[in-house]
Amino acid sequence: MPEHTPQGQSPQSAPGSNGRSPLDLPEGDPFGPGNLPYGIFSTVDFPDHGRIGVRYGEYVLDVPTAARTFDSVYQDLLGGDTLNALMSAGRPVWQGVRAELTGWLTDPAHRAAVEPLLHPLAEATLHLPFEVADYVDFYASEHHATNVGKIFRPDGDALTPNWKHLPIGYHGRAGTVVVSGTPVVRPSGQRKAPADPAPVFGPSQRLDIEAEVAFVVGAPSVQGRAVPQRDFREHVFGVCLLNDWSARDLQAWEYVPLGPFLGKSFATSLSAWVTPLDALDAARISPPPRDHALLPYLDDSDPEVIEPAGLDIRISVSVNGETIAEPPFSAMYWTAAQQLAHMTVNGASLRTGDLFASGTVSGPEPDQLGSLLEITGGKGPYLQDGDEVVLTAWAPGPDGSRIGMGEVAGRVTA
Amino acid sequence: MPEHTPQGQSPQSAPGSNGRSPLDLPEGDPFGPGNLPYGIFSTVDFPDHGRIGVRYGEYVLDVPTAARTFDSVYQDLLGGDTLNALMSAGRPVWQGVRAELTGWLTDPAHRAAVEPLLHPLAEATLHLPFEVADYVDFYASEHHATNVGKIFRPDGDALTPNWKHLPIGYHGRAGTVVVSGTPVVRPSGQRKAPADPAPVFGPSQRLDIEAEVAFVVGAPSVQGRAVPQRDFREHVFGVCLLNDWSARDLQAWEYVPLGPFLGKSFATSLSAWVTPLDALDAARISPPPRDHALLPYLDDSDPEVIEPAGLDIRISVSVNGETIAEPPFSAMYWTAAQQLAHMTVNGASLRTGDLFASGTVSGPEPDQLGSLLEITGGKGPYLQDGDEVVLTAWAPGPDGSRIGMGEVAGRVTA
Repeated sequence: MPEHTPQGQSPQSAPGSNGRSPLDLPEGDPFGPGNLPYGIFSTVDFPDHGRIGVRYGEYVLDVPTAARTFDSVYQDLLGGDTLNALMSAGRPVWQGVRAELTGWLTDPAHRAAVEPLLHPLAEATLHLPFEVADYVDFYASEHHATNVGKIFRPDGDALTPNWKHLPIGYHGRAGTVVVSGTPVVRPSGQRKAPADPAPVFGPSQRLDIEAEVAFVVGAPSVQGRAVPQRDFREHVFGVCLLNDWSARDLQAWEYVPLGPFLGKSFATSLSAWVTPLDALDAARISPPPRDHALLPYLDDSDPEVIEPAGLDIRISVSVNGETIAEPPFSAMYWTAAQQLAHMTVNGASLRTGDLFASGTVSGPEPDQLGSLLEITGGKGPYLQDGDEVVLTAWAPGPDGSRIGMGEVAGRVTA
Repeated sequence: MPEHTPQGQSPQSAPGSNGRSPLDLPEGDPFGPGNLPYGIFSTVDFPDHGRIGVRYGEYVLDVPTAARTFDSVYQDLLGGDTLNALMSAGRPVWQGVRAELTGWLTDPAHRAAVEPLLHPLAEATLHLPFEVADYVDFYASEHHATNVGKIFRPDGDALTPNWKHLPIGYHGRAGTVVVSGTPVVRPSGQRKAPADPAPVFGPSQRLDIEAEVAFVVGAPSVQGRAVPQRDFREHVFGVCLLNDWSARDLQAWEYVPLGPFLGKSFATSLSAWVTPLDALDAARISPPPRDHALLPYLDDSDPEVIEPAGLDIRISVSVNGETIAEPPFSAMYWTAAQQLAHMTVNGASLRTGDLFASGTVSGPEPDQLGSLLEITGGKGPYLQDGDEVVLTAWAPGPDGSRIGMGEVAGRVTA
């Protein structure tokens, strides 16, 4: 399993070095008690396999040990080396575990017992947090789809006729989803410029990123039964950041008529932390107004029937430390609830670990574009070997607080 | 897990009813000692979970019990409720297990010990034989691609410019692959005829089949490294039949620009038996001549370098008991070895259980078409509720024998 030792840990937060308890967070810390994202971590003390951790400030709570210490009724679900068992248990259990975690981390009576269970993040190795079942990538930003349509199909309409009627998506390769920090090998493949007589083979010359938000299914569904929008929170466990690495030259040559394949399948990077949906309650917003009437299973025009499923997540994209874009997830046309309803309306079942991503998040402004293709108008430059791409994001929490999301980092290698 | 009690068992082959040993096969039985396909089965004696079985005539050998009886060195790999452990072990182990199975079933000294381990197929329930990792569907029949191109894109070239340069494929939904015999619920979704002002929602009116041959990966590969054609047999464990159910009306509306999604993702039916590649040695043939030069990683023009990877598999498609087509797999333009090389040339890794299918098998003749779309020229009729579709196939074995493949059966429900 790919591994990653995350960065960004300031030396003074090592335990004891400043005399502060790991439980006393700096004011405004985006990984405070309202967040509690889940991941899988290991340390030198137990290097052979990962265990469930919850991020708290710059520390990771050893969850299975805490569950034993406090004799949690959920011990069996919290003992694995992936989140899958917890995710499959369903929303009442997710809420119960979250309530316990909140108690362990915030009740003064538990401080002495909990402090030794917090490991410095800088000393932890983070693993892929769950086994990915099926991976679906949508295309839900009108700005992105319009920008790309103009570049890939300059002689046609930017948006295809179906775009405003259904959330377009396709299946990607689940087996090459890797955790943040995993190096990404530049893919080789066929490319053919329109003027070339035949395709040539070699390393991609147009390696790009796509900044996306991804949702992971916890509770499965039955084959043959659609999952309506209103059941979104019963099935979806949490939210990640995702970088859908894309080889534009491979993609342009291969994608007609069956869609992207090798241009995307070499690697997809996922954040090591899964933000529970409940941590994003204060970030829920209405999506942009729809300019076409939607079929009933996709209709979300009445917030009394379908609670607003947009999310005000602010993404930042950096290459080699320089911020190049700040795509707003609030601008997405299609919500994750609509995507879930669409994905299952034909009876396709959901499995624990199903991952579905938004597609590139792009906003209307020039500094809000989530891919180099759009930022450079299709002209490049694209990524060079050695470039490191980092996606970070936060969302509004209660009372002016911030909910931080786990970063997605990846460096391109030859 | 979906289950299926197979049919086609003649009453007189029940054990003892004709006094014949299950080990004495009728002459020309296509499931003889040269075949030995693997599956997962259960019986009333052990209903709770499946175990590995090998089909022999109209019987199923209880493999884990045989492995214990004969103290096989492979016992640990043969004890699971899927084939995944065996598949992951690699070709030397596959050959070792096959040699042991051959000995158990054909050595007269073992008859008394083996006979009680053979269960009548008619009394067995067959399960999905392995956990599907990623599922990829190719588009490898020139006849099919040409026929479909003419129907879906009547104003353009039937074959897209890339078709003769690379095996076009896309990822499908692994979570809805079901074992032969599982009923298939007619999917609902959006459709829009060109003259309609807006899409409508409802059950598909153009439910179709695609008769395909599928290959399953056993030994995994490392992300970032391509798997060349010559390593095909080191990675691919065996061959199945597959029915890629397709809702043509949903597909036509959704598939531009990112490919098929809900038109395919509701169900894909797989045979319960996996034919080992070694059982198909006598069926290996050269693929049709290529009319474009291929890039080196796809070139298979020199049989001294790349052994012929075509397979002479004869498929039969029946609807409600009537044979409607006999598609020849020998006519496929792209081989499975080329598909594997292409799928990994960008560094995408293989996992145990990766399934890749050929795409619809169609030959040049009117009675060799593997889909109703082609058979009816796009006009229908398509499948009605209650229709049962059965795919069967066989391939030449040594000395004029036949190697039978497991059927794929499925009935459409409302």
